[in-house]
Amino acid sequence: MAEEQTVAHDDARHAEKMAKKKAARDKIMATKTGEKGLIIIHTGKGKGKSTAGFGMIFRHIAHGMPCAVVQFIKGAMVTGERELIEKHFSDICEFHTMGEGFTWETQDRARDVATAQAAWEKAKELIVSGRSMVLLDEINIALRYDYLDVNEVIAFLQEEKPPMTHVVMTGRNAKDELIEIADLVTEMELIKHPFRSGIKGQQGVEF
Amino acid sequence: MAEEQTVAHDDARHAEKMAKKKAARDKIMATKTGEKGLIIIHTGKGKGKSTAGFGMIFRHIAHGMPCAVVQFIKGAMVTGERELIEKHFSDICEFHTMGEGFTWETQDRARDVATAQAAWEKAKELIVSGRSMVLLDEINIALRYDYLDVNEVIAFLQEEKPPMTHVVMTGRNAKDELIEIADLVTEMELIKHPFRSGIKGQQGVEF
Repeated sequence: MAEEQTVAHDDARHAEKMAKKKAARDKIMATKTGEKGLIIIHTGKGKGKSTAGFGMIFRHIAHGMPCAVVQFIKGAMVTGERELIEKHFSDICEFHTMGEGFTWETQDRARDVATAQAAWEKAKELIVSGRSMVLLDEINIALRYDYLDVNEVIAFLQEEKPPMTHVVMTGRNAKDELIEIADLVTEMELIKHPFRSGIKGQQGVEF
Repeated sequence: MAEEQTVAHDDARHAEKMAKKKAARDKIMATKTGEKGLIIIHTGKGKGKSTAGFGMIFRHIAHGMPCAVVQFIKGAMVTGERELIEKHFSDICEFHTMGEGFTWETQDRARDVATAQAAWEKAKELIVSGRSMVLLDEINIALRYDYLDVNEVIAFLQEEKPPMTHVVMTGRNAKDELIEIADLVTEMELIKHPFRSGIKGQQGVEF
């Protein structure tokens, strides 16, 4: 009996607490009415930067919103996503893989620069075309090695990106100047990694 | 002429640096030969926890690997993904939405507990079935409010999860005990958020 009363009391307190939480949340959300195309950055050493970028692309596909992907650095990663998109959703999502392998695989700076420039030309074309979202996968790597000029990228995003187009940029070591002009920045922080116990990258998880 | 020489020199240095990087990377990767089903956690206040979880689910779908999703807390979020998966990939990915709205929307603890328990029963069934990946979306919220007992969840994962099944658990405030037993933990850290400038959650980005 005493226990039942305590449970009832806990439930009532919980309801009250949650009602307050809902009121606070509703109040905040009511002020958020704007819409605009966002500059979104996923950076940090942790997992999920590209994966979450592709997650938003699939979200766009799900809603029938036109989108596109440019991969600046091609690795073993995200080949699965590319196949899936090309097979089922090529009408709504354009997919370009421009990089020729991680830069430490090629050891050819001149070629890396040319590839990054070509990828950026394609990216600009897709962005100005008015799609709802363009994912520039691993562009931060190209910016970090100065294969691309960050000031040129920023100037383009600020002056020529259509107002409702979202641009998502992924990769470690996002440049400070880019973070400065972005609307939504998430740092994926590595807390624990299975490599430490000798586990390799696995299909479906890493690629 | 001098400029050309400098460029050639820079390119040679770059090639050398990248060759070293590749050798170091190859050496490390050669030691990573194991495969196992991972316990993966996405936590933190930043964006991309569920999105990256769904990204891995789409990666599994792309490779034709059986997988499943249990949503512990249903919100406006990820409805797009659910529709896309149910429409195109229901043969390879089972999808269950068990939660009845964010807990601060319901204000009914007894119902929240019952819903979380039902979701957990479904999760256990899907995990022991031997699928390659099961995504337990927002389970950390249910654990945080003690709708589920974290020790029960840990005991199940350690004793009954098939060795090759990946379990992905998302949501803020992952419990320390869960982080302790996980293989791969990423904290999504919020650096910048457009809510600060009065922008609301937008289709294709947030849901």
